[in-house]
Parts: sequence; C-alpha cells; structure tokens
Amino acid sequence: MDHALPAADALLAAFADAVGADGIRCDADSLRRYGADRAPLAAPAPLAIVLPADRDAVARALAVCHAHGLAVVPSGGRTGLSGGALAAKGEVVLATDRLRDVGPVDVVGRTIRVGAGVTNLELQQLLAPHGLQWPIDLASKGSATIGGNLATNAGGVRVLRYGHARRWVLGLEVVLADGSVLQLGGANEKDNTGLDLCGLFVGSEGVLGVITAATLKLTALPGPAEVALFALDDIAAALRLLAAARAAPATLSAFEVFDARSLAAVCSRRGWPAPFQETAPWYALCELEPAPGGDAAALEAWLAAVAMGEGVRAAALATDAAQRRAFWGYRESISECLAPDRPHKNDVCVPIAALGAFVEGLQRFDADDPGSILGIFGHLGDGNLHVNAQRARDAELFALVRRLGGSISAEHGIGLLKAPWIGLQHGAAELAAMRAVKAALDPRGLMNPGKMLAAEPSAI
Amino acid sequence: MDHALPAADALLAAFADAVGADGIRCDADSLRRYGADRAPLAAPAPLAIVLPADRDAVARALAVCHAHGLAVVPSGGRTGLSGGALAAKGEVVLATDRLRDVGPVDVVGRTIRVGAGVTNLELQQLLAPHGLQWPIDLASKGSATIGGNLATNAGGVRVLRYGHARRWVLGLEVVLADGSVLQLGGANEKDNTGLDLCGLFVGSEGVLGVITAATLKLTALPGPAEVALFALDDIAAALRLLAAARAAPATLSAFEVFDARSLAAVCSRRGWPAPFQETAPWYALCELEPAPGGDAAALEAWLAAVAMGEGVRAAALATDAAQRRAFWGYRESISECLAPDRPHKNDVCVPIAALGAFVEGLQRFDADDPGSILGIFGHLGDGNLHVNAQRARDAELFALVRRLGGSISAEHGIGLLKAPWIGLQHGAAELAAMRAVKAALDPRGLMNPGKMLAAEPSAI
Repeated sequence: MDHALPAADALLAAFADAVGADGIRCDADSLRRYGADRAPLAAPAPLAIVLPADRDAVARALAVCHAHGLAVVPSGGRTGLSGGALAAKGEVVLATDRLRDVGPVDVVGRTIRVGAGVTNLELQQLLAPHGLQWPIDLASKGSATIGGNLATNAGGVRVLRYGHARRWVLGLEVVLADGSVLQLGGANEKDNTGLDLCGLFVGSEGVLGVITAATLKLTALPGPAEVALFALDDIAAALRLLAAARAAPATLSAFEVFDARSLAAVCSRRGWPAPFQETAPWYALCELEPAPGGDAAALEAWLAAVAMGEGVRAAALATDAAQRRAFWGYRESISECLAPDRPHKNDVCVPIAALGAFVEGLQRFDADDPGSILGIFGHLGDGNLHVNAQRARDAELFALVRRLGGSISAEHGIGLLKAPWIGLQHGAAELAAMRAVKAALDPRGLMNPGKMLAAEPSAI
Repeated sequence: MDHALPAADALLAAFADAVGADGIRCDADSLRRYGADRAPLAAPAPLAIVLPADRDAVARALAVCHAHGLAVVPSGGRTGLSGGALAAKGEVVLATDRLRDVGPVDVVGRTIRVGAGVTNLELQQLLAPHGLQWPIDLASKGSATIGGNLATNAGGVRVLRYGHARRWVLGLEVVLADGSVLQLGGANEKDNTGLDLCGLFVGSEGVLGVITAATLKLTALPGPAEVALFALDDIAAALRLLAAARAAPATLSAFEVFDARSLAAVCSRRGWPAPFQETAPWYALCELEPAPGGDAAALEAWLAAVAMGEGVRAAALATDAAQRRAFWGYRESISECLAPDRPHKNDVCVPIAALGAFVEGLQRFDADDPGSILGIFGHLGDGNLHVNAQRARDAELFALVRRLGGSISAEHGIGLLKAPWIGLQHGAAELAAMRAVKAALDPRGLMNPGKMLAAEPSAI
C-alpha cells in the first residue's frame, strides 16, 4: 500500500457519498457475514461492507478504494468453496446484493440482461414460464448469484449437457479497479470484434474487476428426463457405461459416479435405504433426455442391453418423479454427508482417458494410509471427480492429478484455498502472462489480492 | 521501430539459424502468395517468409524478429476475408504450414492434439473413421488451417448447432512475440485454474502471439440430416419459421436464409433451375437432425404443418442425398456468384429480435439508391446476415447495425478491413482495456500491427 489509510471517518464519508449512507455496513454481524464464503480458511475481518445500488455507485465506490489504495473483495452469494470471497485482511467488501435489475425476457432471441445480484433460483423462476432456462444449475441456487456464477465460471451437475457458465454469456458489464466501466459483448450470438475480454472476465474470480450485469444466453427447458442407477464392479465399468450412454437413443444430460463409501455415508446420515440389495464398489447415475418424438421402448431396450454389460451388477430405471428425485438424492447428498467427518473436498479433473489410472492412484493412497480418502464421487462424464481426503494428502493428490495431465480445480476455482498450488498447474511463463494481464487491468493490484495468482508482486 | 533494420544478409543468416535455410522464402512468388489472404486490400509486400518446422523453431524465429524490432504477420491457410494475414508493409510472415504434428485420437476422452498447420479437411478425414468430428465446417476447409480457425474464432454453417471454434478447444500452445512459449489449458473438459488465456488467444487474430498447436474437443458425427427449403413472403415469416423449427421433433442444425436477388445470381451464373416454380422475396433452408430413434412420420407431419404457416408460399423436403446437396448448393454458391458483380461482402450480426428492423433498414438503403444492396443472405438462426453492398454504404450499414445493438463483424473478424471501424463497436474504455491486454503480452507491438486494434499507440 503506497497510501496511508485515511481516518475512518473520512473514509466512511467518502463511501457514503459514493453509495449512500444506507449502503455501508460496519457492524460486527455484517462484517462476519459478508466477509467470508463457504471455505473456512481464516476469520473474516473486512474493513467495511459497501452495497452499491447500481452500476454507477459501484464505479464511485471502486474509485474511492482506488484513490485510497484499499484492497477490494467482490462478493456475490458467498457460496464459493475456495475462499475467493474471503476478506480476512481489512479489505473493502463490495457486495452485489442490490444489483438486481432484470431486463425483459427476449423469447425469440433467447437472451436476458440481469444484474449481478440476481440468484440462480430467481432467474430460474423468471424464465420457466417462457419454457426457457439459463442452464447453470447448482445445489446452492437459492443463494448463488449470477455475478458469482460468472466470476467463477460455475459448472454444476449438467456441464456434460450444457457446459460451463462461460458458454452462456453474451455480454458483461464490468467495473475496473479505477472505477471505469466496460461494456463487453452484447446480445449477439456472434461477435468477432476485438479481444474476447468478456470471456476473460468469466472465471477471473474478482481479480480483474467487478461484474455488475450480464446478458445471458438462454435455452429451452428440457422435457422430463429418465434417470437410471447402476451398481458397478469398478471405474472401468463406469467408463464403458459412459461410452454406451453416449450412444443411447436419447441425449445424455448427466453421468455421475460415487463410490461405496460415499453412498454409505448418505444412507447412514440420512437414514435412507440403499438403492440395491447388495452393495457394490461403485455406482453410476445416468440421466437421459428422450428425444422429441423419441421412442420409450427404444430406451428400455437400450437399458436392458447395458444392464447385461461387463462389470454391471445391477441397474434400475426410475419409474416416476419421486424415484428420480430419490436417485438424484443419493448423489446430491454426498458432499453434505461426508463433510462432518472431514470437511475437505477436493475438486479435481483429469482427462477421461486417465480416470482409471487416477482412481487406481487414489486407492494406493488409501492402501498406504487407510482412511485417508473418505469418498470419491463426481461428474465422471466430465472427467471431474471430487475427492474427500485428508488435507495432509493434498500435495500427493495434486501431484497425481498433474502427472495425469489433469486440473487441480475443475469447477471451484483457485481462490485462496489453492493459490499456494497454482504453480503446480501453470509454469512460470504462463503465470507471468496471467499476472501481466491482471496488471494491465488492475495496475495497483487492488482487486481481490492474494487470490488466484497468489504470489503476484502487487498482492498485499 | 526503435532498431535500425539489420543488413538483409545478417537477418537471413539469423533466420536460417532459427528455422533452417529451407524454411525461408524470399522469391517474388512466395512473397506474393504468403503475403495476403482473400481480402485484396493492398499489394502484399512482406520482407520474408519463414516456415518453422516445429514449435521451438517458431520461438527462435520470433526471438529474431523481437531482437530486430521486426513486425510479424502470422499466417495459416490465408482464407480470411478481412486482411488479417495481409503483409503489405515489410513484415515477416510466419507461416504455420509445417506445424503438422497430429497426436492420437482419444476416442473415449474425445480429444486430439494437432499442429496449427493441419487443415480442416485433413482433420475431418482423420476423425471420420472414429465416428467423430471437430464441428467447425467451412467452405474453405481444404485450405483453412486449425491455427487459422482458432486465431479467428471461426464459425461456419453449423454455429447454430455447435457454436464457434472457441467452444471446441481445450488447450493451446502459443508463442509470444519475445519467443516465450505458453501451454494454456490441456485436455481437460473442466479447468478453472487461473485466467482463461486460452479463450483470449482464440479470436485474437495474431495480435497477441502465434498459435502453434491445439488440443481440440471432439463430438460425435451426426447422423444423416433432413433438409427442407421454403419460399417466404418476408423476413418476419422466416423468423416465425425459425421459432417453429426450434420446436421440431428433431435437432435444428442449420437455419439459413437468402433473398430473391441472391438466388437469382446463383441460378443465372450456375445455370441451375430455380427450386420452386414461382419466385419469392425470401427463401429459408432448414437442416434438421432426426433424433436417435426418432420418428420420420413426426417430422413429415411437422413439415406439413409449418408449410401451412402464415407467409410460407412453398415448402420442399429433400428426398435424397442428391437433393439435399442441391438445396445446400443454392446457399453455398451465393458468395461466389455475387462476387463478380461487386466483391464486397459485409458480415454483420444483429440480435435476432432486431432482424426485422435490420432488413427493413437495408431495404430503405436500396429504395434510396437502387442497386446499392446486391444481396442479403446468411445464418438467420444466429442473427448473422451477409450483406453484399456498395463499399460506399459501409458507414451507413455499420451505423444501422450498431443502432440495433449488433456486431460489425460476426464471423470474419476485424483484420485490416474493419480496423478503421472498431471504434463504432467498442468505446474508448473498452479499446483501452484491449490495448492494455495486448501491450501486456506484446509490449513492443510487433504482432500483426495495424490489425484489429488499429490505432494502438504501439502499431507501426
């Protein structure tokens, strides 16, 4: 910091000018609540919370921070799992709660412009009557905001079908550290004019600027999907099933796996019956959208054929909506049911071709040190597994991921949690290029310092 | 330039060290051939052509250019339509022809790593036996290279179904102006670690560095598609048809339109019969992939229903492969058949909701000054129309596009052709941010100067 901190009173007056007196919170409860996300990495200790009511107020608030050399932590729904929204070092938290403008639903063009503070659930409810969706679906949809989804390039359970958030944004409004406003992209499906800064801001975890609004691309709500659950011998059987599911007479919209330990934790904590009479080492959940005009008998015939496949111990097709919810319930409860035992979930990705070697490597961890892996589950169709493991094994886990050409963070980002590890993922030249790009847009290094690009020279 | 040009002999010796003597061309024919793409904006006049045989040779060649302050024009298949690969000011052309390494097809993971110099057609032929494709399909596929596709974020006729090139790349190898090599991304479907420089380089038109290899995401080859042709009253009827086509019992994979003038040019130059007995103001081509296990009768019933729709004068479903090719032939021949009259095709995009107003605006041009618009055609499903117009009307055309919130270049990029107009698309703050990002990666402004970000201070 090359500026002495101004007196607290003067600063509060400047923020009050910027966002109005009702847009500032300094009480202990707000500081605690707005100062952290869902990664309990340090005690929240922000300087103040500012809640601008519109884009111009965001610009004024950031200009105040810039003038005083204050670090800024942008904050959406704070449902992140990597500490990207943690403010533990006296930063100003810029919360997007009040950026809630919603434009009309363009039903023909299939777009909508929304403020960063709108939640996924609110957007879902707004679009459903038009038969449309923004297809990023998260367990935390009641709190997670569109701005947060975009800042972290959120994925969710239907990445296999729809891809990440970056694919579903046509335009962004962002405010840079110095308060300047950028309008990036627009409502056009196709726009090859200039550098793709819109895509660059998606997934930038608040280190480049604050996303204040977005023009989103929408798609049709899918029809009802079929859900099948399989009990399997091993991960190789799951990979064969994935190949078969891609060739099913329907659109594969999710392909999830979980191991016996993950299922046992769910059944025990929730008091639910096991899905099959006998337990199996692995389970797969497969969601299939029947084609328009598709044939139900064809799907049943496909299921009967794959149920006879090598390594498939049992298969069940959900017969009604309640059973579909029950099958999904096993998968969606894992994270919560494993957490009480050892709340450290690693979110990694390896190329699908390397998944067998990866799971083998994890099993070796466990053989060396029983109990070091609590459960393995995740989005097999994306090569993305979540590994609930002892934190002490992180170094080995990440090294294994990198040996297999994988990514140490598939969905959850780097934030503070994995900032010390980013050098495992990217070499010196790549990190230097990222830091140069950050410095170009945030020369004073005030945006979310210490996150993502950790050792950047400009971080506080 | 802050360096005096070295003596030609010394420079050639340095390039010979970098890429081998057989990797340099200075003969008049090569200078002409490698010095321009398909936009005849100026006479090609490069200093020399270098053809490195591998990534390290690219790095050495760029280091030579950097040391001597020489501007570099990266060059792929030179099929671009915006002059992005034109070298008219003594630049060094760095051609990727020899970067032709191809990795194994990962059939399970659906990825492949290829050198930048591989053509779309070669890749297509390599993947087809595996039932896979890289779904960027271009009329120029025999010459266009993967590196060029990525540098321009190519689209093509199936953007509606598959999106642009950016969506189908998982990793890039690039060499920066100073010769440093970046490995961006990898073979992972999901990777939220750091800034998305991979996506930033896609569509960067050679102003940030040279793409030398890419790890591409693949998808299944589609089954045979149905092709229907419609004669329509007006663009409003085409938009209603688009909405109906999205709800067809099949996957809409292309929705193209062309006006009566475009069709007349094709029929007259090619000597083809008109598709319908009576002419109509507008035509639409609709390609539909029947769902796996889908029902042919359902599709025919859908077609019969839409053929009765308001503004639909006639409809025909192709009965065999030859007729499907014939229907596509009308659309794909337009560009070539209009070119002899007035070879100036503008590639613009407006939000789909604004297409009606856009076509109305164009018709007003023509009413004011008959003959100023030669033909309107394009990818209606993407809001992307090509307008063959008098160059003198560019300013009005772009102003109309921007009034409607559109993009002055949907697919073809900015290059040299539209560099003078980029200020219409982006404001001062946005251009300053793009130039700052370019300067961060190419501080001396040696990469493709004068293109895209035109008036950048560092351009020669």
